[in-house]
Amino acid sequence: MKFYGYWRSSASWRVRIALNYKNVAYEYVPVNLVEGGQREAEYRALNPMAQVPTLILDDGRQLAQSLAILEYLEETAPEPALLPRDPYLRARVRQLAELVNAGIQPLQNTETVRQLKAHHVDEKPWLQYFVGRGLDALEASAQAHAGKFLVGDEVTYADVCLVPQLHHARRFELDQARWPLCTRVEAACLELEAFQKAQADRQPDAVAK
Amino acid sequence: MKFYGYWRSSASWRVRIALNYKNVAYEYVPVNLVEGGQREAEYRALNPMAQVPTLILDDGRQLAQSLAILEYLEETAPEPALLPRDPYLRARVRQLAELVNAGIQPLQNTETVRQLKAHHVDEKPWLQYFVGRGLDALEASAQAHAGKFLVGDEVTYADVCLVPQLHHARRFELDQARWPLCTRVEAACLELEAFQKAQADRQPDAVAK
Repeated sequence: MKFYGYWRSSASWRVRIALNYKNVAYEYVPVNLVEGGQREAEYRALNPMAQVPTLILDDGRQLAQSLAILEYLEETAPEPALLPRDPYLRARVRQLAELVNAGIQPLQNTETVRQLKAHHVDEKPWLQYFVGRGLDALEASAQAHAGKFLVGDEVTYADVCLVPQLHHARRFELDQARWPLCTRVEAACLELEAFQKAQADRQPDAVAK
Repeated sequence: MKFYGYWRSSASWRVRIALNYKNVAYEYVPVNLVEGGQREAEYRALNPMAQVPTLILDDGRQLAQSLAILEYLEETAPEPALLPRDPYLRARVRQLAELVNAGIQPLQNTETVRQLKAHHVDEKPWLQYFVGRGLDALEASAQAHAGKFLVGDEVTYADVCLVPQLHHARRFELDQARWPLCTRVEAACLELEAFQKAQADRQPDAVAK
């Protein structure tokens, strides 16, 4: 598989964690979001939304959207699982994952920040508001079923989405002490090699601040 | 089941279509987004993100996030299906659904528009840009596997997300002729009773313009 991503993109990061967790081998192709690599014609032919990640399967077929890719990996490489078996708990995992995927990340991503700047909006209070609001809701929503991880005692999509999001919360200078459950779960995730290897600063295209 | 929604919310609308399509009975509880009903303490206890929809199951357990709810319905009321059987095509359906769910809708929803106004941004060019960009990408991405519907000849999540999104494109005064495939599929959807009954203006809380 060929995996187009960017070191600091949280959507790319989620897919890296899942690929590592399921021991799926891949070739990494960096797309430089800061230099606008995602908007070049060659890449847009693979991904009309001009976003990362894009996964190219061994037969050449392509897939985009991080949660769609997680579901594909779960169906084609089911073990170790990233979803529980119980239908309600599966739905709760997906609820928490979507809270990050649709509730936070679209409001902080590269294109959104670019448009805010074009409209002469200082992006920092915007980012702090939406990321803070989303993580407050995640912290509250996760209480009901949390164990060692956000839902129960096994890693799920929810944890896969949490870890990159907390990185961005720190980057936007939010105080993580506001989310004690999320912080505890992040620490549990980072004990696992799949998460360690997926960290943004360990990717070949990572740039020192 | 009890279903908290708002007539014009596209996330609520998706779930209405799926509930109708699968013949799942529900009691509708309107939450007035314009008057801020979603931010009241009683509702936030059900949905900490202060968004619609929220589904309350017969045993009192709650679920939020429209795509998590679609997946739950698909697993617990599998017929008629809203996903194909082939894993790659399932992933493509989810890709198109996420393109709307995470790629468009968060950038047009009530809270985003409220924040744009707070930052003194005229929301109309913002909405036209993000909705136009997203539907351009949807139109391009859907070409590969479209049939009568966006993926193949059966209704899927992708169509469920498309119909409410096109309503908002028209509301934001975008010319739908720009997306001929999407327009053709919308017409096919609207021949079905599940879609007809779910239309925003047929809901009990609908308000004439």
